[in-house]
Amino acid sequence: MNKIAVIGTGNLAWHIVPALKSLGHQVVAVSRHTSRSHQWPVRVIDHAGLVRFAPDTVVLAVPDKMIAECSRKLSHVLPPSTLVIHTSGATAMKKIDGHFENKGVIWPIRSLRKGTAPLPWTDLPVAYQGNNDFSKTRIRILVDTLTQISYSLDSQQRARLHLAAVYSNNFTNWLYQISYDLCEEMDIPFEALLPIIKNTALRQDGTEPKLLQTGAAARDDKPTMDKHLKLLNGHPEFARLYRLLSNLIQEGVED
Amino acid sequence: MNKIAVIGTGNLAWHIVPALKSLGHQVVAVSRHTSRSHQWPVRVIDHAGLVRFAPDTVVLAVPDKMIAECSRKLSHVLPPSTLVIHTSGATAMKKIDGHFENKGVIWPIRSLRKGTAPLPWTDLPVAYQGNNDFSKTRIRILVDTLTQISYSLDSQQRARLHLAAVYSNNFTNWLYQISYDLCEEMDIPFEALLPIIKNTALRQDGTEPKLLQTGAAARDDKPTMDKHLKLLNGHPEFARLYRLLSNLIQEGVED
Repeated sequence: MNKIAVIGTGNLAWHIVPALKSLGHQVVAVSRHTSRSHQWPVRVIDHAGLVRFAPDTVVLAVPDKMIAECSRKLSHVLPPSTLVIHTSGATAMKKIDGHFENKGVIWPIRSLRKGTAPLPWTDLPVAYQGNNDFSKTRIRILVDTLTQISYSLDSQQRARLHLAAVYSNNFTNWLYQISYDLCEEMDIPFEALLPIIKNTALRQDGTEPKLLQTGAAARDDKPTMDKHLKLLNGHPEFARLYRLLSNLIQEGVED
Repeated sequence: MNKIAVIGTGNLAWHIVPALKSLGHQVVAVSRHTSRSHQWPVRVIDHAGLVRFAPDTVVLAVPDKMIAECSRKLSHVLPPSTLVIHTSGATAMKKIDGHFENKGVIWPIRSLRKGTAPLPWTDLPVAYQGNNDFSKTRIRILVDTLTQISYSLDSQQRARLHLAAVYSNNFTNWLYQISYDLCEEMDIPFEALLPIIKNTALRQDGTEPKLLQTGAAARDDKPTMDKHLKLLNGHPEFARLYRLLSNLIQEGVED
């Protein structure tokens, strides 16, 4: 059992606090807004309370740009031996203040949202990292009790995976939005596309997606591509995107 | 019961022939390659056999660019009353030869592949169209026995939906490919992204996808976007795509 303080009460805290608690750890949430403590399944304390709690592990569930500042503040009140873990996909481990000897990262590879039902972590992939053998072991044990799918990645690899996730998640969702816009303009229910959207995602099994690539660009079907670009006459930005992605597909499938 | 001839033995024929047969119709497949008939659950005949079979309905499961020519050939041997249906998302109904009085379209909104297990059509969305009341009724009855999800769309709407599906299916699959490339270069298993890929698709329920949009572009987080673009130094085309999609997201979420 660890004494874990989670700093922040945002999306990630919302999902990791109950998960850590259910594993039997002694968990508190640290926030300036202790008045909203009824939303949380653990005690919510402020920074003064944190010092009395004396955690052995601190999880920084704060916005990326706050990691440096937040850990610097903590360095004034917590001993150097405290294990400090940040939870950002895009931030280097070294952003955690130099006062702390034991640092690490736990990054759940998933888009998390506050207010939704707490996620089952067992099949949620987590990338982790530690700055020395002690941190690595402690974090690996913690992660392995949380999930069955974990990846030991250094800061560079994690930043790269975070970038790759932008394409697979954020950008993909915007392609759905474009489809939605195109449908709505002509009174076509976007629902008609949900099965193909789900099928395209669910058939991914880790093999190279281009082996499943279909469509006009993949088969170099210029008449259909020209027809599509004509239909996009009123949407120059969608047409730009259409050309760019079609070019990438055509070059890619030739490899 | 209809006497249905399916012309072509490609991806669509592979999935519609067993579906039509299982509904109790008398179905034949028409192909120049009658020697491969053992692959098919119905009799495979050539064009000469087609005249003897005398179908009341012909389904054209041929490449888009063959629809006009193929239906013209049929016009020399089949009566004008034959109902001729093409199965293309991107092709206007009028491409079917003028000899035929009864025309229509059945387009399953799904990427279909030959050689895979025949799909259950019940929850496969199908767009359909007919050129007159007789065709419309006949086709609607046929479609409604195939699937529970059908949409009556004109040629313009269907072409638009086909274009929207390119974004949701073909282009999305290529975003997965980019993620795959980015991971592979740094020895990161692409499997780490499968849960987020599936989650992003499965949470679509017909509401506007932008309401679920997350990420650096959506929250106008310039430092993270700059970091990502730096990581893409060796990939100018991925960076171009990154900028274009981020701009579209930023303009779109402001609306």
